[in-house]
Amino acid sequence: MVDTSNLARSREKLVMIQPEPFNAEAGPGALAGDVTPTDLHYVRSNFALPEHDGVLEVGGAVGNELTLTLEDLRAMEAVTRDVTLECAGNGRLGQTPLPVGEPWGQYAVSTARWTGARLHEVLSRAEPSADGVDARFTGADHGPYYQHEDLPYVRSLDLVHAIDPASEILIAYEMNGEPLDPDHGAPFRLIVPHWYGVASVKWLKRIDVLTHDFEGEFQVGHYMYEWPDRPHEPVTAMRVRARITDPAPAATIPAGEYVVRGKAWSGTGPVTKVEISETGEGDWLPAHVDVRREPYAWQSWSFAWRVTKPGRHTLRARATDAAGNVQPDVPPWNRLGYGNNAVEVIYVDVAG
Amino acid sequence: MVDTSNLARSREKLVMIQPEPFNAEAGPGALAGDVTPTDLHYVRSNFALPEHDGVLEVGGAVGNELTLTLEDLRAMEAVTRDVTLECAGNGRLGQTPLPVGEPWGQYAVSTARWTGARLHEVLSRAEPSADGVDARFTGADHGPYYQHEDLPYVRSLDLVHAIDPASEILIAYEMNGEPLDPDHGAPFRLIVPHWYGVASVKWLKRIDVLTHDFEGEFQVGHYMYEWPDRPHEPVTAMRVRARITDPAPAATIPAGEYVVRGKAWSGTGPVTKVEISETGEGDWLPAHVDVRREPYAWQSWSFAWRVTKPGRHTLRARATDAAGNVQPDVPPWNRLGYGNNAVEVIYVDVAG
Repeated sequence: MVDTSNLARSREKLVMIQPEPFNAEAGPGALAGDVTPTDLHYVRSNFALPEHDGVLEVGGAVGNELTLTLEDLRAMEAVTRDVTLECAGNGRLGQTPLPVGEPWGQYAVSTARWTGARLHEVLSRAEPSADGVDARFTGADHGPYYQHEDLPYVRSLDLVHAIDPASEILIAYEMNGEPLDPDHGAPFRLIVPHWYGVASVKWLKRIDVLTHDFEGEFQVGHYMYEWPDRPHEPVTAMRVRARITDPAPAATIPAGEYVVRGKAWSGTGPVTKVEISETGEGDWLPAHVDVRREPYAWQSWSFAWRVTKPGRHTLRARATDAAGNVQPDVPPWNRLGYGNNAVEVIYVDVAG
Repeated sequence: MVDTSNLARSREKLVMIQPEPFNAEAGPGALAGDVTPTDLHYVRSNFALPEHDGVLEVGGAVGNELTLTLEDLRAMEAVTRDVTLECAGNGRLGQTPLPVGEPWGQYAVSTARWTGARLHEVLSRAEPSADGVDARFTGADHGPYYQHEDLPYVRSLDLVHAIDPASEILIAYEMNGEPLDPDHGAPFRLIVPHWYGVASVKWLKRIDVLTHDFEGEFQVGHYMYEWPDRPHEPVTAMRVRARITDPAPAATIPAGEYVVRGKAWSGTGPVTKVEISETGEGDWLPAHVDVRREPYAWQSWSFAWRVTKPGRHTLRARATDAAGNVQPDVPPWNRLGYGNNAVEVIYVDVAG
């Protein structure tokens, strides 16, 4: 049986989107720190909480099939990394026309400190076949899904991505210094840095090396950008994005100088620039961006805003990453509403 | 001197956008009734409250210049009409990229009961010249405006529009049964049914019949749709629009049947249809639309929504008017951010 005794308490600070399967976004303030407390980390589940027998099997096109327990994984060298995960559907409510799918607001993004074994070490031990092309990851979770009566959650990565030590993909068994809880994939899960959360398979049960491209529902059906006017594309790396965390939307602030703060992240390189603008035609003014504290975690930024006129003021924040990607005002619409990284617009009231 | 002794109190229920000149939108709940209480009616001002000597002059290309006092207007046949006024910039915060201009949310729309004399009767008395083409209206308000050092608020209407009895344009001196207060144009103002509020000149001081088209700043500079890819067009009639007034955005409602209520209006004909949808691909389901109670006022609508699954649900409302105009998901963007009549999207939480 799944131990759910502590779940009610660990869920109470979240903003529930759906009770079963449980989906919830972070509460306000969850983006303030470098690391998100576990009880403020968003939860995305496609199916009911699964049972998991504590065993990870590695097979398929390998020379050495493995059966690993949590103890086996703990016996390998442990790596701890702060990793920002964002749900691919984050910001779906902000897309027009409204797409189908869970109505995520803007808070399905969090940064936790994950500890685990390196995926590439596990795969190396399994000795992937020379003609392997994909690593396929099967979660213990399963259930009805659209036309499927009982579908397991299965995703894949290119084998070259999975076995590259520089990818630093983890099979994580600790989150913020504690064993994973059921909502976050206990007893262990994948953590794929830089990618939308969809790749970080929870309740990891099996890894198979394939000699062909995997084409399951969660790989080529859902989690595809269905552009109306060009070929569909898979959801992969997180798009560059900045969020304003202080002031809160619609907050009242005193007149004078106010230090605006926020977070910024990108799956395609460190954020090199955050800019602030007040209106659609105002200049973009540079904010101070902290250097990336950890290679896979969001960065803090700040902007000394001088605002003296009382009344309602708008604020926009726009990030650019080292690869030159910049947030658009209106990202291209896609049917399932993924990857909304539109420039954020908030307003605040300056006290008279 | 402008009597402002009661202004602080009459303003306190509004959501202030700008203190001077005073601009404020209605508070939540202002859209609930057929008629908006005066202290919940939005206020749009381009300049500081003006002084007004209580005299209305009518001149230009007329055979009979007039000088009218409030008593003269009251001596004419009084007409009382409920009229929905919406600021052309209402919803500007929802346009992307964010346009320039006052950051109106979604509450710069109200319906008051206006009493006044008929404009066409006043104009008839003045005997417009046969070669008259425009009626120009000058407010007592003036001040600095962009490149102008001291600009008065001046607007015009086609003379055929102004003198048509069926237009039912009022020179209003009462609002909801009381004399106009300074924020709403005391001692009298224009009320132009069906048009965005920009046409309803407050603190009306002069009317001139012109033998040429008026081309002032507020006629051909501002209050123009500046489309990026086609000729600019003047802001005229209000675009068809529905708003959801109950439940409030982000409200928690019980599971079961919930009667969703709202208002709908259009400057181009009665609203003939309001439809509700839950997601971007869901069916549009018909709501019940009340017949128009008054020819220039918003209509109420309702929808019996059966929602049993706990969690976050989205709701969209879309209106169509008798002329066949229908709300778009994304209205065409224009530089100054006018006429945003996008389909509204809200979410609510259904209690578990």
